[in-house]
Amino acid sequence: MLIKNGNVLTFENDDVAIKKLDIRINQNIIENISESIEAEDNEKVIDAKNKIVMPGLINTHAHIAMSIFRGTFEGCDLYTWLNEKIWPIEANLTPDDIYNASMVSILEMISTGTTCVNDHYFFSNKIREAFEKSKMRAVITRVLMDSDGKEASNIRIKEFIELYESRNKNNNLITYTVSPHGLYTCSSEILQISKELAIKYNLPIHTHFLESISEIENIKKLHGDSASNVIKKYFDGLKIILAHGVKINDEDIRILKNLDCSISHNPISNLRLGCKIADITKYLNEGLNVSLGTDGQGSGNNLDMFETMKIAGLIQGGIHENENRIGSKDVIKMATINGAKALGLEKEIGSIEKGKKADIIIVNMEEKLDNIKMMPNLNVISNLVYNTEGRCVDTTIINGEILMEDRKIKNINVEEAIKNCKRIIKC
Amino acid sequence: MLIKNGNVLTFENDDVAIKKLDIRINQNIIENISESIEAEDNEKVIDAKNKIVMPGLINTHAHIAMSIFRGTFEGCDLYTWLNEKIWPIEANLTPDDIYNASMVSILEMISTGTTCVNDHYFFSNKIREAFEKSKMRAVITRVLMDSDGKEASNIRIKEFIELYESRNKNNNLITYTVSPHGLYTCSSEILQISKELAIKYNLPIHTHFLESISEIENIKKLHGDSASNVIKKYFDGLKIILAHGVKINDEDIRILKNLDCSISHNPISNLRLGCKIADITKYLNEGLNVSLGTDGQGSGNNLDMFETMKIAGLIQGGIHENENRIGSKDVIKMATINGAKALGLEKEIGSIEKGKKADIIIVNMEEKLDNIKMMPNLNVISNLVYNTEGRCVDTTIINGEILMEDRKIKNINVEEAIKNCKRIIKC
Repeated sequence: MLIKNGNVLTFENDDVAIKKLDIRINQNIIENISESIEAEDNEKVIDAKNKIVMPGLINTHAHIAMSIFRGTFEGCDLYTWLNEKIWPIEANLTPDDIYNASMVSILEMISTGTTCVNDHYFFSNKIREAFEKSKMRAVITRVLMDSDGKEASNIRIKEFIELYESRNKNNNLITYTVSPHGLYTCSSEILQISKELAIKYNLPIHTHFLESISEIENIKKLHGDSASNVIKKYFDGLKIILAHGVKINDEDIRILKNLDCSISHNPISNLRLGCKIADITKYLNEGLNVSLGTDGQGSGNNLDMFETMKIAGLIQGGIHENENRIGSKDVIKMATINGAKALGLEKEIGSIEKGKKADIIIVNMEEKLDNIKMMPNLNVISNLVYNTEGRCVDTTIINGEILMEDRKIKNINVEEAIKNCKRIIKC
Repeated sequence: MLIKNGNVLTFENDDVAIKKLDIRINQNIIENISESIEAEDNEKVIDAKNKIVMPGLINTHAHIAMSIFRGTFEGCDLYTWLNEKIWPIEANLTPDDIYNASMVSILEMISTGTTCVNDHYFFSNKIREAFEKSKMRAVITRVLMDSDGKEASNIRIKEFIELYESRNKNNNLITYTVSPHGLYTCSSEILQISKELAIKYNLPIHTHFLESISEIENIKKLHGDSASNVIKKYFDGLKIILAHGVKINDEDIRILKNLDCSISHNPISNLRLGCKIADITKYLNEGLNVSLGTDGQGSGNNLDMFETMKIAGLIQGGIHENENRIGSKDVIKMATINGAKALGLEKEIGSIEKGKKADIIIVNMEEKLDNIKMMPNLNVISNLVYNTEGRCVDTTIINGEILMEDRKIKNINVEEAIKNCKRIIKC
C-alpha cells in the first residue's frame, strides 16, 4: 500500500516538521519513506494531496465502556459523582452492556484518529472481544482494588489472571497492564499482589494518581506515606503509567523522575471534575514523560484526542501568566510519541518511521467550507492542535490495515452499534 | 417559512428546556411557535426531525479581519505579540485586504452557527461591505485610541464619524458602538470624546478591559485611578460592553454592577495569551451580565462559538476546586440571550420567542458516525455544550433569511473567498 503526495508529520532532532513524502506500507510495517515512490502494479494507493499524514494518536488513559455515562456529570465533585452516580450503575452492567458500550467508543476513536488506547475497566474479556472485532490496537486490563473488601478483591484478581492467561498469543494488537485502581482504594496487600503480577507477566503498572486534592490525605492515612513514596516502594523497577497526576509537587517530581514512570494528563476530565490544572509545563521541563488521555466519557465528554490536544495546549495559559509554556509541537509529541513511550511501545508505534508498525492517520486540510476554521492555512502545526477536530480525520490505518477510509468505517456496522448502545438505558 | 418537528431550545422561568415545537417565520419575524403548525400551500418547510433548533449564537467580542493572523501566536505574552507581530503587519493592510480577510470570517461564523457579532477594528467601511454582502447581523465600529499621538487619533475619530454618518438607515442588520481601544491606550481626552459620541448617537461603548495583569498598573499610571472607576467616571449612564475582564476584583464588581455593563468573556484568547482564567462563576453570582466572545483568530484560534462555549464551561473547573460552578445551561445563556443583553438587542434577538427576529440555527444530532461523540444522546443540553462543534450546524437563518441550508452557503462563493484571503500573505 502506498500513501502518495501527503504532508507528512515527522520527528527529527527533537523537532516536529511537515514534509512532502510518500510512504510505502508492506503488511503491517512502514517499509519505506521517501520523496517519491512509484506505485507498483495493482498496489493500493491513497492520494493524500493537501492532507496531513501523521502518526495515529495514542490515548493513554480511558475507560471506554463509559460511553453510556456521557452527559451524566454536571457540577458535583469527583467522589460524589463516583459514589452516587457511577458505581451504583456500574454494579448492574452486564457483559453484553460492556461490549456494546465499548463498540461505540471504538467507533469514536477510529473516526477521530486514535489508533491505540490504554483502557482501565472490568468485564475486560468483553472489551477485548470488541477490540478484536474492530482490529484496533489497545492495552487492556482488569482493574484491581480492595476498598470494598477481600472477597470482591479476590474475584478481581482471579478475573485479571483469567483475562491475561486466555490471551491470544498471535494477536500482537492487544497488550496488557496490571492496574490497581488507585492508591486510595488499594491496600498494601493489593499493591504487593499487583507488583508480583507485573513482575511475573512482565507488564506495566497503570493506576490513578493524585487526581484530586483529597487523595493526598487519604493516601497518607491508608499507607502512612506520600503517594510518590508509595509508588516507589511497590513499583520501582517496573514501567509505570500514572493517570492524572494533577497534584504533583516538587518532592513528587524528584521521586518520580528516578522511576520508569509517565504521567497521563487528562485535561478535560480534570476540568470537568473541578480538579484544577496539572502543571505539565513543569513536569516536561523537569524531564518527566507526559502523554495525553481522555478518561471515560462521563467526565471526559468524549474520546476525541484532537480536542484533548487543543485543551491541553490552551490551559497551560490558565496557570502560567506571561511565562514560557508548552507549544503546539510539545502537544503533538504528547499525543503520539510520548504516549508510545508511556506504554513501552515506542519501538513499535508513535511516529512514522521506517520499520515501525503502520499506525497512521490522514487529516483533511483541503480548502473547503468544513475547514474554514483553518483558512488561510499559514501554520499547519498550529492548525493541527488548535483548529482540527477529530472528524477532520479522513483515513485511519492501524497495523497496516485501513479501518476507516474517506470516513467510511470498514469492520463495524455503525448504525447497529449505536442502536445496541442506546439499549443500555440503565443510566 | 416553517421549521417542523424540531427539538426547540427555549428559555422559560430562567430555565433552559428542549421541547418538540414547530416555528413559523413570516418575513424576518418569528410569527408563531406551537406544538403543531400545518404548512400552507407553497410554504418553504425545513424538516428539523432529530435536530436541535436554537437561537443563533451571539459573539460579543471579535476582530473579524484578523483571520489572516490565525496561527501566528505561539507562547509569547499579549504585549510582545501585539507590538512585534500584529501592529507592524496591521499598519500595511489595505482596505481590500480587510474585506477579503473579513469574508472568510463571515463564512466561519455563518457555518458554525453565529448569527450576530460585535466587531472591533478599523477600515470598518470595508468590513461593513462584507457584512452587507453576506446579510449577516453585526455590530461594528471604528476603534479609537491616541497612545500613538494626536494626529493618528484625529483621523480615527473622523473615520468613525464618517462610518456612522454614512450608514444605510434602511439596513437594520448593522448597528454601531463607540469603541475606545482600551483604558491603557486612550487618554482622558479620547475617553471624553467617546462619551460624547456615544451620547450624541445613542450608542453603546465597547472597549478592552482588564485583560492582562500589567494593565492594572498602566491604567493607574495613565488615569490615576482603578479601571472600574475610570469606566464609571466617563461612561456611567451608557450601555457598556467590557471585553475580557479577566482581572476584575471584588471592588471592581461592586462598581460595575451599578453600571449598565456586561462582561464579554473570551476564554480561548485569554488562555492562549497567558492571561489566566476570568472567574465568571463569581461575576454571574454577583449579578453581572456575562456573554461570550472569541476575540480575533490570532489569539482566539477561530470564531466557532460552540468551541468557546465548551471551553468557557470547562475552565471554571480550573479555578473552582470541588465548588459549585456554572453548568451547561448557564453556558448556553451566555452564548445567546446574555449576548443579546450585552448589545442592547434583547428585545430583537437572543431567544426563540414570538415577535422576535428570526435568528435561528439548526444543529444536527442524527445518529450517524459524524455525531458518534454524542451517542447515546442521553443529555441533549450537555451534548450541545460539550460535544457539539460548529460544523454540526446544518442551517443558519438570520433575520428570516436562510444563509446556509444543509451546509450549503447561499450568498457567498466559498472557494473564491478562501482564494482571496490566501492572497494576503503579508504575515
